[in-house]
Parts: sequence; structure tokens; C-alpha cells
Amino acid sequence: MVNTEAATVTNKQIIFRDYVSGFPRESDLNITTTTIDLRLPEGSTSVLVKNLYLSCDPYMRICMGKPDPLSSSLVPPYKTDSNMKRMCMLDHFSDIKLPIIGLGVSKVIDSGHPDYKKGDLLWGLVGWEEYSVITLTHYSHFKIQHTDVPLSYYTGLLGMPGMTAYAGFYEICSPKKGETVFVSAASGAVGQLVGQFAKLMGCYVVGSAGSKEKVDLLKTKFGFDDAFNYKEEKDFSAALRRYFPEGIDIYFENVGGKMLDAVLINMRLHGRVAVCGMISQYNLEDPEGVHNLPTILYKRIQLQGFGVCDFYDKYSKFLDFVLPYIREGKITYVEDIAEGFESGPSALLGLFEGKNVGKQLFVVAHE
Amino acid sequence: MVNTEAATVTNKQIIFRDYVSGFPRESDLNITTTTIDLRLPEGSTSVLVKNLYLSCDPYMRICMGKPDPLSSSLVPPYKTDSNMKRMCMLDHFSDIKLPIIGLGVSKVIDSGHPDYKKGDLLWGLVGWEEYSVITLTHYSHFKIQHTDVPLSYYTGLLGMPGMTAYAGFYEICSPKKGETVFVSAASGAVGQLVGQFAKLMGCYVVGSAGSKEKVDLLKTKFGFDDAFNYKEEKDFSAALRRYFPEGIDIYFENVGGKMLDAVLINMRLHGRVAVCGMISQYNLEDPEGVHNLPTILYKRIQLQGFGVCDFYDKYSKFLDFVLPYIREGKITYVEDIAEGFESGPSALLGLFEGKNVGKQLFVVAHE
Repeated sequence: MVNTEAATVTNKQIIFRDYVSGFPRESDLNITTTTIDLRLPEGSTSVLVKNLYLSCDPYMRICMGKPDPLSSSLVPPYKTDSNMKRMCMLDHFSDIKLPIIGLGVSKVIDSGHPDYKKGDLLWGLVGWEEYSVITLTHYSHFKIQHTDVPLSYYTGLLGMPGMTAYAGFYEICSPKKGETVFVSAASGAVGQLVGQFAKLMGCYVVGSAGSKEKVDLLKTKFGFDDAFNYKEEKDFSAALRRYFPEGIDIYFENVGGKMLDAVLINMRLHGRVAVCGMISQYNLEDPEGVHNLPTILYKRIQLQGFGVCDFYDKYSKFLDFVLPYIREGKITYVEDIAEGFESGPSALLGLFEGKNVGKQLFVVAHE
Repeated sequence: MVNTEAATVTNKQIIFRDYVSGFPRESDLNITTTTIDLRLPEGSTSVLVKNLYLSCDPYMRICMGKPDPLSSSLVPPYKTDSNMKRMCMLDHFSDIKLPIIGLGVSKVIDSGHPDYKKGDLLWGLVGWEEYSVITLTHYSHFKIQHTDVPLSYYTGLLGMPGMTAYAGFYEICSPKKGETVFVSAASGAVGQLVGQFAKLMGCYVVGSAGSKEKVDLLKTKFGFDDAFNYKEEKDFSAALRRYFPEGIDIYFENVGGKMLDAVLINMRLHGRVAVCGMISQYNLEDPEGVHNLPTILYKRIQLQGFGVCDFYDKYSKFLDFVLPYIREGKITYVEDIAEGFESGPSALLGLFEGKNVGKQLFVVAHE
């Protein structure tokens, strides 16, 4: 069903200026206003959506770096027309102004696709703009079926970060009751869930974060057995020995660099490291050297890099698992919600300085 | 059955002087002569063996370093009485002179153990000496059942290195036909087999080694698709790009350090690294920094450290697999055999300078 009456409205967009090295700045992200026809052209199989919540995720820094065949195999770089289209399956970019691509929760305004109709809710890849025209591909978007939970959760707990925590912890780490688990960036969108999953599994779990407020949150809100502020530790390895005198069975890696180095020499025999992210490395010109790799041999450790994209076939299984816990109050989630489209750039950049407390997102429209 | 007549003979031993940092020297290994009664005491459940072949293996350098809880979890350090006994289950060391422990092929002289009788052949942990009294524990020793192949093979192809190649390649690397495989230290005891297994599997395989002679061996004798001398390469990554323009699916890691760093940025999506050894790091005071770990994330790579000790339950399956190939001439093996007990120290130390061509061992006695 395609609308027949035209309705052109303004469409604010957040445009990425140019590739960044080091920490990105607000001037790297410009807000512009264009227009969009809220009616899809005849015969289109796309879906036109109004974006409600847009998600700020650490991986987006990787997309801001200059194109590199290595990182591109996880997430393609922003900018150039061809890259944008390949990555995000958005088909309405005919001019050179291209918004950042990210994950969002959106409402269908018009649809040429048989699976979606006006008023449906979905989450997936959209432009950082008020309205997006999206082309559906395999696991690019998911229809939202459960609305008794906050809609914003589909940028976090019930979206990509939640699925990341689920796949990373259960599939990659193969946890067993009684094992010891360490989570870095533990109050973030993914980490806070890994800690809660670990407790549900009967593990001992400790998290690191970058402020007293976050450390308190880990202990009081998310049920971590203990937590520490890495900024107050001169010697990460000594800190880890304090919390894990018998060593670490599972490390859920979100930061990389010096923390990884310290964790490696504190791992137990047959330990597992799920490499989910390395946020401490994304803004560096060259990644730090990690010296303790012989430990991988000595302790027979597994390091496994993973991307949630390889696990979306388990998304409905994940929902079946997690929704009851949410409804029973056994899993909780902290979000850091910025209000208004204009708050997008600073919300995103704040991630790289650890300004966010919990899952960072911003509201484009409430309905 | 225990002998009743005493027969005391001389027993030469290779004694480890003291913990080593940097490259070990011949003066770190002293040959002494003691005596041994070739009759086990009444009621003993041990086995007294005459050592025929003793094996020189890279892991032995780890045992020579000063005791470290990290490396000890793979192989215990040499020296002190308690460490020696814990490691090697040799129960006849009552004085402070302790020979190096290693793997060997031996012939039973006397036995208090129901599974072994005089004349039986076995391979497993023995002292570096002419005669050893051994206590059998789980997978510490294996009876040799097939003698239509060279007995020395039980220090290599049919012993620990062969089992290492088998477990590492088939169990850890999960190879598939058509995949690309890189093997470092490829002409060594393990590497030469990994290359041949890779060819049997229908993979494309390239090896690195440290001399023209070894490189030639890889290409002409072991059937590697290609090979290069790493000592002639200034830029390992450029060398790897030359042989793997489309990237590496499987890396069988024997060396560590700079080579690992170069391999990581040449790995393909979902690549696997079996960390079998890191010989380039064993003589360093501090291991080198590896900078390309973010690639583990970007390419969703698995690094898996492993020790053959975790796979000995598959030893008979391995024999069933490999013996027919040996008999049909489809798997070959190059040994570097030093003659005589006195050649032991230099044979071992030569490993760390890459002097050996193929599996290094030495002959203690021909029968």
C-alpha cells in the first residue's frame, strides 16, 4: 500500500564532516535541514519511517576513522556514497549530504514492503535524521512486537547491545556456575547486562568503570559482586589480583590495551575472553602493544573476537529468554537519554570520554 | 614380576645447573655419572627403563626459566626437588642431582606395574639419563604397539609433536577444504606435519622457516604450496600479503611476537589461530608487544592457546589416522638425530638458534 497524496516536510540530519583521527569533536558532526516526501514513490519496496530514538554506540567511532580494510570487515566507514549505501541499505541518498548511520527505534509512516504497514514499530539501521527511507535486508531491521516494555529498550537491552551481551556471554564465554567473570566498561550498554547474566548463571562477577557513580551503580543496581574505578588504579594487574585472587575464568572485553594486558596474566587455566570491543584503542593512531600474549599459550586461553551480526538468528530466542526477566524485575537497565535531535552529536561524543552513565541514546520524537 | 638379582650399573645424567634468562648455554647443562640398580625394589609399582631416544623440544626452554606461576600451568619449571617430582612422576630422585626431564622412547628393563613387562617399549616422560625409574600416571606414558615404523618417530611424528599437530590442526583450527593456512617454524617437529595435514585436507598452505635449506624442504619434501625464509624478510606483513593476497584463514602459531603481529592484520574474517608455541619469546626477559589485537575484533578471529596434554585421550584415534598414511608414504617426517648421550645438551640448545632441520632428538642407545 503506497500513499497517493504528497506531503513534503523538513528533515533534520546529522552529517559527518570528514574522517577523524584521535578524539572526534562536535565540529565533526553538523546538523543540516533538508526536506523529504512522506510518500514513497509508486512501486517502492522500501519503508519510510519516523525516527523516535537514535542510539549512540562505541562502534560508531570505528566508522569515523579513515577507511581501513581491517575495521571495515566489522563495520564499514562513514561518508562516501558507495560505502554508505553498501553499509546501511538506505536508498534515498541522491545528494552528497549523507547523515550518519546508526541504530534506532522508528515508526512506519509509509511502506512498500509486505511485512510492514503504517504504524508498525521497528528497530534497526537508520540515518541520523528525523525521517529515513530504509531498504530491508537480512537482519537489518526487526519488527517490534512487545510494547509493554520501554520502547527505548530496543536501542539497548532489547536491541543490538542486549543481543551482543547475550551472544557474547552465553555463546562465546560458555559460562559455568561458580566461575569468575570480569567485565570492563561494565556500566555501559552491554556490560551492565553481562554482569546480570553472570549473576543469573551463578558466577562471581566484578566490573570496572570510570567513575564512583558508575562503580556504585554496578554494585547496588546491577548486582555485581564487586567493582572498581580503573581511573583510581595505577596497576591494573594488582587491582585484578585483589578481586580475583584465584584468577579470572571469563573476561568480557570492552576496552582493550592495558586492561587486556593486565587481565591476561590474571586468567585461569582454560579461561575465555570474549572480545566485544576495544574502546580504549579506537581513538589512537596506533593500537597499544599487548605484552602478555604468551599467557594465552601457558594458560590455554581462548580469545574470541565476535560481532553481533553473526548472531541475529538467535534474536527471537534472546527475546524469549530476556523478556520474562524484565517483566519480573530480575533484569534491570540504566539508560542515559538525551532529549532532542540537537543533542545527538554531544551524546555520541560523550561516549568516548565515558560521560554516559548506562546506555546512551537520544530522543528524536516521542511518537 | 621383580628381579631378584642386583645389577648396579653406571647411569649418565644431564643435570640442569640453574634457571636461565636469555639464551641458555651448554654450561647450563652438565653431564654427570651416577649409578643405578637395574632391579626395582620389592613391592614397587614403578617401571625401570633403558632410554633409547631422548627428545629435544622447544617447550623445554620454558622449564629452564625461573619458576613463574604463569608458564608453570603449561609446563613446570626444572630443578627443585619438589617441582621435579610433581612434574615428572619420577620417584627415584633421593639426592639433589636431578636430570632434566623430557620425552623419550625407552625399553622396559624391570617392571612392578601389571601393564608392562621386560622388553616392552614405551614413550613418555623420562629423565635425561641412560636409565630411568618411572611412575605411571594418567597419559604420562604410552606403550609402543607398532614397531614397523622407526622407533624414533615416537619422539616426533608418533609422539607428543605429532599429537600436537593433529590436535592443533584438526581440533583447534577446524579446517575446511580450500582454506588458506600459514605455519611458522614450519619445518620443525610440529610444523612439518601441520603442513602435510593441511594438504591432505585440501588447503593452500605456506610455511616460514629460518634457512634456505628448510624452505626447500617445505616445498619439495612436505608439499607446502609455498614457503619463505623469515630472516630474509624485512616486513613480515608484506611477505604474508605476497603469499596470501586474499588473507589467511588459519594460522598455526609456533613463534609469537612480530610474526603474530604481522599475521593478525593478514587474517581473514572468522580466522583461527592455534597458539601452539611462541619460541621467539621464550628467551626474552619481557615478551614483545603485539599491536594488532583490535584485528581480533574487526575480523572476529579466534586465538586459542592449547596444550597437547588436554588431548591425549585422542592418541589412539590419532594413530589409527596417521599410521596408514605413513605406511603408504603419504606422510613423511624429517628428523635431526644427534648420536650419543653427550650430544644432548648441544642438540637441545641448537633448537633455540634454529640449528635443527626437522625434529631434533638424540640417541642414547640403539637397543
